Amino acid sequence: MRMSKLAPLICRTQRQAHALFSSFQIAMASSLVMCTLQMRGRGSLVKCLQNVDKLLLRGIGTNVVSAQAEATRKEETDEKVGHRSFYAVQVERQEQAERSVLISCPFRVNEKRFHKYLLNHGDINKFFFYESHSVYAVVEFASRESVTSLLEAVAIPIVSDESVVPFKSRLLSLRNLGAVESPNQPVKQCQPQTTIPINELIQRLSKEESIDQQINSLTEAYQLTEENSRLRFLVCSLLKDIAAAYFPECTIKPFGSSVNGFGKLGCDLDMFLDLGGISGYSVKRPKSGLSLEYGMKRANSERAVTQSILSVIGECVEQFGAGCVGVQKILNARCPLVRFAHQPSGFQCDLTSNNRVAMKSTELLYLYGELDPRVRYLVFTVRCWARTHGITSSIPGAWITNFSLTLMVLFFLQRRSPPIIPTLDYLRDLAGPADKNVIEGNDCTFVSDFSKIQVESNKETLEQLLFEFFEFYATFPFSRMSINIRKGKEQNKPERTPLHIQNPFETSLNVSKNVNSTQLERFVALCQESSWLFQQSETNTRRCNGTPIPWGLATLLLPSQVAGIKSRRKRKREPATERIKSLLESLKNKKLAT
Amino acid sequence: MRMSKLAPLICRTQRQAHALFSSFQIAMASSLVMCTLQMRGRGSLVKCLQNVDKLLLRGIGTNVVSAQAEATRKEETDEKVGHRSFYAVQVERQEQAERSVLISCPFRVNEKRFHKYLLNHGDINKFFFYESHSVYAVVEFASRESVTSLLEAVAIPIVSDESVVPFKSRLLSLRNLGAVESPNQPVKQCQPQTTIPINELIQRLSKEESIDQQINSLTEAYQLTEENSRLRFLVCSLLKDIAAAYFPECTIKPFGSSVNGFGKLGCDLDMFLDLGGISGYSVKRPKSGLSLEYGMKRANSERAVTQSILSVIGECVEQFGAGCVGVQKILNARCPLVRFAHQPSGFQCDLTSNNRVAMKSTELLYLYGELDPRVRYLVFTVRCWARTHGITSSIPGAWITNFSLTLMVLFFLQRRSPPIIPTLDYLRDLAGPADKNVIEGNDCTFVSDFSKIQVESNKETLEQLLFEFFEFYATFPFSRMSINIRKGKEQNKPERTPLHIQNPFETSLNVSKNVNSTQLERFVALCQESSWLFQQSETNTRRCNGTPIPWGLATLLLPSQVAGIKSRRKRKREPATERIKSLLESLKNKKLAT
Repeated sequence: MRMSKLAPLICRTQRQAHALFSSFQIAMASSLVMCTLQMRGRGSLVKCLQNVDKLLLRGIGTNVVSAQAEATRKEETDEKVGHRSFYAVQVERQEQAERSVLISCPFRVNEKRFHKYLLNHGDINKFFFYESHSVYAVVEFASRESVTSLLEAVAIPIVSDESVVPFKSRLLSLRNLGAVESPNQPVKQCQPQTTIPINELIQRLSKEESIDQQINSLTEAYQLTEENSRLRFLVCSLLKDIAAAYFPECTIKPFGSSVNGFGKLGCDLDMFLDLGGISGYSVKRPKSGLSLEYGMKRANSERAVTQSILSVIGECVEQFGAGCVGVQKILNARCPLVRFAHQPSGFQCDLTSNNRVAMKSTELLYLYGELDPRVRYLVFTVRCWARTHGITSSIPGAWITNFSLTLMVLFFLQRRSPPIIPTLDYLRDLAGPADKNVIEGNDCTFVSDFSKIQVESNKETLEQLLFEFFEFYATFPFSRMSINIRKGKEQNKPERTPLHIQNPFETSLNVSKNVNSTQLERFVALCQESSWLFQQSETNTRRCNGTPIPWGLATLLLPSQVAGIKSRRKRKREPATERIKSLLESLKNKKLAT
Repeated sequence: MRMSKLAPLICRTQRQAHALFSSFQIAMASSLVMCTLQMRGRGSLVKCLQNVDKLLLRGIGTNVVSAQAEATRKEETDEKVGHRSFYAVQVERQEQAERSVLISCPFRVNEKRFHKYLLNHGDINKFFFYESHSVYAVVEFASRESVTSLLEAVAIPIVSDESVVPFKSRLLSLRNLGAVESPNQPVKQCQPQTTIPINELIQRLSKEESIDQQINSLTEAYQLTEENSRLRFLVCSLLKDIAAAYFPECTIKPFGSSVNGFGKLGCDLDMFLDLGGISGYSVKRPKSGLSLEYGMKRANSERAVTQSILSVIGECVEQFGAGCVGVQKILNARCPLVRFAHQPSGFQCDLTSNNRVAMKSTELLYLYGELDPRVRYLVFTVRCWARTHGITSSIPGAWITNFSLTLMVLFFLQRRSPPIIPTLDYLRDLAGPADKNVIEGNDCTFVSDFSKIQVESNKETLEQLLFEFFEFYATFPFSRMSINIRKGKEQNKPERTPLHIQNPFETSLNVSKNVNSTQLERFVALCQESSWLFQQSETNTRRCNGTPIPWGLATLLLPSQVAGIKSRRKRKREPATERIKSLLESLKNKKLAT
């Protein structure tokens, strides 16, 4: 495992060693274009690559600047997170969340005093700030008893001219009475909870020295941080408290982007109410004689039960949930859900129930992401590229979804020679008895033990892979063939929809049934354009005038000018080819002038 | 206290001794009228009066036939219930309910086996059956641990072609697998949960030997039984479990008829969600430095908070509550409420919150009812009389309410000479510091300690009082005067509504604002008719022909023929005067024939 993760790094290191000993740092500041040429020494490159190395070893790269340094032991545990099974990580995160509270803070509060105040209730494992409308602190105690102790000292707010719904949760509010904090009080270091704007990203990428580094940089800027991940589990835990009032044995688990390894900062929080742990199903019934059953409300179907439960939870979130706004009970959807915005975390939340196939899909994606780090890098890059060009969208429609796009990347990686990741059928064949999992007639079995999986030693760089990805789908026979990660081979299409991607578990379903031919054509055309730009980019010299000039991956994120590919968003930005042309022109003129 | 309770009995005994040594048992069976004269001996009268005596001593008469005999000590406690404060009784009942479960049973189950089965989980204080759609058992364990132990052995039902909402409560269902119970298995003795039909009541009253006995008999047939009272608290406790999921410190208390001593079997169950016990309001806040508050949802008013809370509880009752049907959230009413029918108990339930004045009114009525047993007898009689003639109704409208009617009886009893019950101002003046109670600016203070209250020795019989009641209101100057139990004297009307009865605590309100002049006129005319019938009844000889002929109070419950007094219900029954006329005629003819 460890070797296979290092492979692309070694490969990239070699490539970078002979190609990239110098770099241009280019920044564009408003209309003023200033160029400063800065030759980077060998030492700084080595340091840079060491960082990448560390990032790759971690599996999940994080830009943690914890307000409270964690114990070294703890750090070491996190270091190993990447090598642990999906469920082990989930359980640990859930436990952390149960021991945590979320506290809204005044903007200027003395961090040390606050920390000392909290320590009265027990040891603290983790303590960080972030900003979302207001400043919030996440405090993870070492034990749940500390939370109980803390809550005993918490008052119900008394507000003039208003009333409060006296529903108690672990969402608290810090008051700082009397003493005025010094105006020199440093503003707390806040953890970012959203991605940087696309233009800032393009600038950042333009400064990188290789396309591989650009891909790393993009992933690092976009992926969930350690803190954001904890916050997601904490929101689930707060919601679990609401559901557990009626179903004490329930759990609420995040699924999808929040935990599959491909989540972007700011992505929606999809949650799954799991009632599977309810006792009483397994109570022994005597074959004869008296026995007791609960007097329970009957419903026509499991779906109706789910609707009932979500209706109550939705009502509670709406009526009692501080900072929960825009609550919608979408109970007649194929998969009934409660949607709301959780202001304290800034998450758009979807709560579903009885959605276990989605949970298995999440686990599968996580597994693929962990098998080889290139999987995550490529998925992040392709997703960012697609979103920038309006191939995907946050609103539902005829576009390709992130899930479809991820399956396309996985399929592409299965089709490399040698393959970078194995097929789902292979993973199923490796499964042990404990992995057996059939959900509503769908075989969702696959191996959970990473050590059983043999990965072939493909040495392609990220740059190569990204280019090949565009080439692959620019020429894919979409009209005849179906994408199938279970087999890892194109299959004949069973139906006439423009794009056919087999659902990995519900194999009779097409994941991209919604996609119309226009959207597919846009995707193909954009792949063609990107592949072409990629080739152009190879020959680009990256000059500077104080501001970095977009190159490589950055170029691919500039607005497209391909005929018929109109991005639905960000039309204001200049077309890429136009902008590149004018930049090249200005550089040429500058060169001539000097 | 004890003497004042015995007074009317002694009085009645004397009266009965010289007037009622014989009685007619008259029954009307379809068109056939058979008369059998049955002379009751002195012995049976003494026994009958002893029963009445016992009933009076108990304060609350019950016709308990417990399936499981209670320990003698327990009986003695109940014997004293009548002498205990309202709150002491409430708390005891609530505690009993918390230790109880409600079990739906097969129609024929071996009671001993069932009892033995339950004993595995601990000692049982009370165990009785009743019928409501199906047969149910109420089981009160000696300790709450027994309930916990029992629930651990309870299974979640597995039903074919249906699903269940896995919400666990103390409503259970007994299964008897395999073994078939003997068809000779006696049907369990079930406790009545509804009043007998009016015709049956009339027959029963007609058999009694005095009007006082008739009044006793009516009260005994109509008042809540010990079991029904326990069932009411149990339903509150089951609902409390739902509310306590979110507000652990809350209580749900019955108020109104269920606990004021004037409740009729089958009356609605009014419940009050009390959030007053929520901790966190009293948490000490430092004058300076850091402190924490709960992050709670704000609302514009206490009313909005109540609406939020009731909305969630209503949703939960609707979605999860087995046997809870017809759930209505009536949140925009003056006093927001959730209404539903609880099938397992047969109760129509109204849940309100933040309704503390109603709770004090309940306590006041309870206190008046306990001060002198004639209060309850008279209220029961007048309420039954009013309902029979459609003066009151179960649906809202321009009619007099039971509460208004009760205040009218209380006022009448305050106006006797000497008064049978004291004024509310007197009760307020006796109040100790602990009784002080101001709710939303309304002084709801009155004494809770019965021993402080001096009652004057009025010796009037129930018969006298009932007659005087009709006389009193047949001639009351409704157009000018207001009824006021606080002062115990007529007051000038502050407004021009036909009927003015001052709200005892919210003194600016008129309890009977809804009553229109037609309804008031019907009431007055009926009082006049009843007073006249009463006088006629004195001279009636009660002959028989196997079936008792209605007399005395029974006559008052027959349909009225007073001009303009059309009962909205039961029009099918023959008019009273007509019926009486024909009966007298037939008796006259029979007398002539013999």
